Amino acid sequence: MSTQDFFAANAERHLEEFLELLRIPSVSSDPAHIPDVARAGRWLADRLNAIGVPEVQLIDPDTHPVVEARWQVDPGKKTLLVYGHYDVQPVDPLALWISPPFEPTVRDGKIYARGAADMKSSMITFIQALEAIVAESGEPPLNLILLFEGEEESSGRVVTEYLTANPDRLACDAILNLDGAFPALDHPGFGVTLKGGMLVELHIKIGDTDMHSGKYGASVPNANQIMAKLAATFHTPDGAVAIAGFYDDVVPLSESDRAEIAASAAVMSPILEESGAFVEWGEPGYTAAERAGARPALDINGVWGGFTGEGAKTVTPAEAHMKLSCRMVPNQDGRRLYDLIVAHIEKHIPPGIKWEANYLGGAPAYSTPRDNWALQVAASTLADVYGVNPVFYRVGGSVPITIRFKDTLGVDTVTCGFTMPGSNIHAPNEWFRFEDYPKAQRTWVELLQAFGEA
Amino acid sequence: MSTQDFFAANAERHLEEFLELLRIPSVSSDPAHIPDVARAGRWLADRLNAIGVPEVQLIDPDTHPVVEARWQVDPGKKTLLVYGHYDVQPVDPLALWISPPFEPTVRDGKIYARGAADMKSSMITFIQALEAIVAESGEPPLNLILLFEGEEESSGRVVTEYLTANPDRLACDAILNLDGAFPALDHPGFGVTLKGGMLVELHIKIGDTDMHSGKYGASVPNANQIMAKLAATFHTPDGAVAIAGFYDDVVPLSESDRAEIAASAAVMSPILEESGAFVEWGEPGYTAAERAGARPALDINGVWGGFTGEGAKTVTPAEAHMKLSCRMVPNQDGRRLYDLIVAHIEKHIPPGIKWEANYLGGAPAYSTPRDNWALQVAASTLADVYGVNPVFYRVGGSVPITIRFKDTLGVDTVTCGFTMPGSNIHAPNEWFRFEDYPKAQRTWVELLQAFGEA
Repeated sequence: MSTQDFFAANAERHLEEFLELLRIPSVSSDPAHIPDVARAGRWLADRLNAIGVPEVQLIDPDTHPVVEARWQVDPGKKTLLVYGHYDVQPVDPLALWISPPFEPTVRDGKIYARGAADMKSSMITFIQALEAIVAESGEPPLNLILLFEGEEESSGRVVTEYLTANPDRLACDAILNLDGAFPALDHPGFGVTLKGGMLVELHIKIGDTDMHSGKYGASVPNANQIMAKLAATFHTPDGAVAIAGFYDDVVPLSESDRAEIAASAAVMSPILEESGAFVEWGEPGYTAAERAGARPALDINGVWGGFTGEGAKTVTPAEAHMKLSCRMVPNQDGRRLYDLIVAHIEKHIPPGIKWEANYLGGAPAYSTPRDNWALQVAASTLADVYGVNPVFYRVGGSVPITIRFKDTLGVDTVTCGFTMPGSNIHAPNEWFRFEDYPKAQRTWVELLQAFGEA
Repeated sequence: MSTQDFFAANAERHLEEFLELLRIPSVSSDPAHIPDVARAGRWLADRLNAIGVPEVQLIDPDTHPVVEARWQVDPGKKTLLVYGHYDVQPVDPLALWISPPFEPTVRDGKIYARGAADMKSSMITFIQALEAIVAESGEPPLNLILLFEGEEESSGRVVTEYLTANPDRLACDAILNLDGAFPALDHPGFGVTLKGGMLVELHIKIGDTDMHSGKYGASVPNANQIMAKLAATFHTPDGAVAIAGFYDDVVPLSESDRAEIAASAAVMSPILEESGAFVEWGEPGYTAAERAGARPALDINGVWGGFTGEGAKTVTPAEAHMKLSCRMVPNQDGRRLYDLIVAHIEKHIPPGIKWEANYLGGAPAYSTPRDNWALQVAASTLADVYGVNPVFYRVGGSVPITIRFKDTLGVDTVTCGFTMPGSNIHAPNEWFRFEDYPKAQRTWVELLQAFGEA
């Protein structure tokens, strides 16, 4: 049966599989969801076994398992390593979801669910594409190693350990990362440079206990106030990061960098339209697209301190807390930025205040060489399927595994996926379009066949 | 039976009554606790009926009832209005309580519970003192109006409405407010000047939804960042409030003001020792005691925005929130300060950011004239009971009803109570000392008898 006929005959079951996977709340950063993450891993392994992949195993099956699936068809053929992740971001703020995040709901031609765009759609359509190829040809057109992890949105520990311990077993000629997105609605493209990221938690303490603000508020520091004064020093008034040395390791943008960014920006939605933000903001001297794709940033992801419940409680809080993260461009190092942040805090926090900063991990940026063979093959395939030349664009988000692949296997990664701009990844009401579902299936088939022929 | 013998014979039951009252979680600012507040009101009314008060009624019995109890013994005698509140502050952060806040627990000669110090101990010992007098003499030594409210820690709505509607019914010669505290351990005193207070909530919004910090963090504002920059402008670097006009209506401290504050500070614990704060902070040019008692302040009681849960979520948050309050000295007005705060926000918030500030209410400061007859009688009584001259001190906290009494009834208030410094009112692990319990009972008896003879 041709792959086309196979997709047509199995459309309903394929969609049901997608919904099943979306219903598993595989939030990797929350320890309470470990059993759900493990369940999602088993679910994928079961699917891969069912379509006839000869070797399927779960690594670390009880926590955040990596699903490794291997199909060696011919030692003379190339080997493609396919990477994806089946875990998802947390759902807060839950109140802003129109339908529950783990009850996939159809509205306006879209499936709304946490993970619909990032990236359960990519993963399940790829598996279904492989199933269709097997139905048509009995086996894939080249050797495959699938590596699907369950903690991309948190530490990536299991896959990193497995990668480090098994460089020979994971040797390959190209890497396809399914965690990609279109730069514009219906316009294909490849995220060829990914920012790195690093996470810090900061805790401030001004005393042993919360205090009555009437008795003490006029005479002792307020932890929220100290945190605000400190956080206000993180950026200059015009939007640059004010941590001394923050930009030291950044390679200045070349003319060709700026041209590439301008070309992708020409097809992409303006930041404001896409994000829902009311105004632009950020480092001066760069376009919004340059900032988003090629300049580092520091974000205060969360702040809390004092009384935040219903009603009023007039305390002078003893503690205030912050989660912050930096997005890094190539050549920046998370540990070094952490040291700079610590030095900045030491310099700016008033004497006598206790504080603690913790480095929660990070990974550097990664850039795919524009002349990489697999990138060229993939670009040509997408041009055929979509009838338009895909653009090379830069991604503000981080996929730490790409740099780890490069360091460990010496192989570059091509990132490709069907998430559309504005699909609310990492935010409430994440969605994936119905119409992109069969296109994704078909593209994966064409891509695998093109890699096989290359 | 003498009052002394009566207390001795009923000590165990009296203590059990205190514990019963402490077990009722009468948190007035949380709508979920309205039934508990109403239950505490009924409990007090039942006690007052049981000891023979002729007229007891609950005003607004289903929400935050005011318990009014009247005992007219002789139209030729003076009338004392006794005020107290039986509601309590919220308990957050619950995790810092060593024993549950509504399960009174004895440790080291103290009873730990929310409301133990603020102010269920004062209220129940006063009722028991009245019971002892009735046991000895059949009736109180002067006419009494007891007015116990259930929402002092939130809006004070019911008692204010009742007061406004019934100035003739509440006409009196003196007002005794049981919501007082000792300025130092075992050293009696009267809080003669209370700060006023006002509450504001502030909400900031930079876009329609939380955003992926990798995609947008470098190019759009971050609500936490905007809030921090704004909050950092509320105070000057050296600790004064930087809201333009904030101090305009403040009457400068006179030499006698400063002398009175210094005298009370001489017996009071240093702020740092008492509060558990690591360092002092606040408006320059004033002692910590002057700031605490006689200078206005602005506190950020709560802040929250973005992802504050377990783990990591790299969002650029769309919203940030703040609860702030000002403590006001005599001659300041909450509405006017609110207008100044709004003007300050308008001036300092970047263009294009949506925000909303809400005035949640407030009450001006209040000062008891130092020559008030009831204050003089009370000071002389406490000097006798404790063998040491009570000090007149200023209170950073707010008891809005005092100014309302003055405005409506034209009568000044004497505030007296047995809460000791460091007893964690409005904070976790609030306590009241066992040894102060019989002393409070005896003092109320002496005080009532002294008022009766005056």
